[in-house]
Amino acid sequence: MAFGYEEVRAAYGRIKAYIPDTPLEQAYYLGDGKRNYFFKLESFQKVKSFKIRGALNKMLTLTDEEKVCGVATISSGNHGCSVSYAASMLGIKKAVVIVPETTPQSKVDKIECYGAQVKRLGSNYDEAAALGHKLIDGNGMTYIDPYYDDPKIYGGQGTVAIEILQQNPAIDTIVCPIGGGGLITGIAVAAKAIKPDIRLIGVQTEACPAMIRALADQVFYAEYPTTADTVCDALVGGVGKLSYELLGDYVDDIIEVKESSIREAVKHMILHEKYVVEGACATTVAAVKDYPERVGGENIALVMSGGNIDASLMLEILRG
Amino acid sequence: MAFGYEEVRAAYGRIKAYIPDTPLEQAYYLGDGKRNYFFKLESFQKVKSFKIRGALNKMLTLTDEEKVCGVATISSGNHGCSVSYAASMLGIKKAVVIVPETTPQSKVDKIECYGAQVKRLGSNYDEAAALGHKLIDGNGMTYIDPYYDDPKIYGGQGTVAIEILQQNPAIDTIVCPIGGGGLITGIAVAAKAIKPDIRLIGVQTEACPAMIRALADQVFYAEYPTTADTVCDALVGGVGKLSYELLGDYVDDIIEVKESSIREAVKHMILHEKYVVEGACATTVAAVKDYPERVGGENIALVMSGGNIDASLMLEILRG
Repeated sequence: MAFGYEEVRAAYGRIKAYIPDTPLEQAYYLGDGKRNYFFKLESFQKVKSFKIRGALNKMLTLTDEEKVCGVATISSGNHGCSVSYAASMLGIKKAVVIVPETTPQSKVDKIECYGAQVKRLGSNYDEAAALGHKLIDGNGMTYIDPYYDDPKIYGGQGTVAIEILQQNPAIDTIVCPIGGGGLITGIAVAAKAIKPDIRLIGVQTEACPAMIRALADQVFYAEYPTTADTVCDALVGGVGKLSYELLGDYVDDIIEVKESSIREAVKHMILHEKYVVEGACATTVAAVKDYPERVGGENIALVMSGGNIDASLMLEILRG
Repeated sequence: MAFGYEEVRAAYGRIKAYIPDTPLEQAYYLGDGKRNYFFKLESFQKVKSFKIRGALNKMLTLTDEEKVCGVATISSGNHGCSVSYAASMLGIKKAVVIVPETTPQSKVDKIECYGAQVKRLGSNYDEAAALGHKLIDGNGMTYIDPYYDDPKIYGGQGTVAIEILQQNPAIDTIVCPIGGGGLITGIAVAAKAIKPDIRLIGVQTEACPAMIRALADQVFYAEYPTTADTVCDALVGGVGKLSYELLGDYVDDIIEVKESSIREAVKHMILHEKYVVEGACATTVAAVKDYPERVGGENIALVMSGGNIDASLMLEILRG
């Protein structure tokens, strides 16, 4: 499980022919005379999530034989869509995304529209995972890990940092949401290799501060309870193993933000900055609004991880 | 005022080093088995409007002397922002945007944030225009025409067509909103030169069907009344002279859509497709929803002209 900048650089070389760099746009309403904020718009990816980077990098390293045997994952969200879309792009014909039986049809349709076959298994995520892994192993398919410990996935996600620092070498601080930790760990390892004095700030929702607790308690929380209603469905659950092992050495601070602030941030982004973003990615905006001094920096990139927000939740937030 | 495809091709060669191609993304919710719709996302331009193309092309053809004398325009909207931003990009230090005295401070701030100086003149647009032209001529500045008859502006706007047909040569129909007509005329001339059998469908709001009436009446309506409340502030007023003279030979149909359909289309785009768009550009979505057979085609590109929708209007539409 060795992981370093080389892995990210190699990933960037592999994936850049398949997905264009996402824009790094200056925030119009967040800055002041002292600080400039920039949005790294992963919500502009075709699947509207950074997850395509890791999935694509992983699949680009498969042998022809592995490609014929097929790929699979267990996810009803952005990772599932990304695996589906990456498999289509690369012509991998056998691609299966396993989801719990309770998954709404709209999510199933979205994954299927990118080309993969969806299999509903188990009455919740844990059951789906247990049954799914059996199915995947039994069929000799390659499992595409969302964030646990695959360096190819972390390497793909880390390519965000290479683009940010190419697009604006003056960036001195990167703010990034933390769910499993794959995104921030990939970014942190790459960014600090390119620019050692850059600062990395993680953000978690108060509803599930798994990484904050894991690093404080020095305990690998592979699972973690969600203790409040959250608009960040991409940020619930435990942390990745590779992220848990590495992140402490790379991250400068992790800020916990309130759900009410995240809702305000989603509203701000849609109404004023004119970008549709999901709750997980609005955590970064909540962090710089509530804790500008703690985030610090002069040229700050906020990683806008994804734009897949449920329509009824969006309406509820905008009406609130 | 000769205008042809050569002008568009030359424009594309000039501007492409300054602004990346905007994405052409397949619509997730609009298509059916028979038709695929694609969004040409001009709302992803840094100024969130196609207007940057014409402004940039025009300024790239100025002599050094003209650049020193400066540029100016009269516009409180997307064209004003585009002139401001294009002048900044090209290092043109003297850039003035004239707006009526009644213009909200938020619009003035936005134009100024891109670098130009804003001058408030006259109590309405006509007065601002009369006083503005005197000021511009008196100072020897170059006027950057929004849509009237400058081939350099039409050429810049037309580059949208080159990108669409490079990104997906199977596109057989382009649907485009019509205000002054600069955008659709540039696109139509270029698209039909590249692919003679491509169909061009214009769309206007029922609140101001100036081009439909101009072509039907064979009268050049330099001004045209707005007869109802509209969410399409970019589509009100008369038509451009060059557009009036050329468009009849290039456009296959112009569809008038209802304001209620445009509001529904804005809502659909934000809530479901996850793109913040302004009313003007949602007219194309309204057209294909209300008149799919009349629009026709199998692979249809909708020109999403801009994303600058007022926050309070957006909330009103989403709540409606």
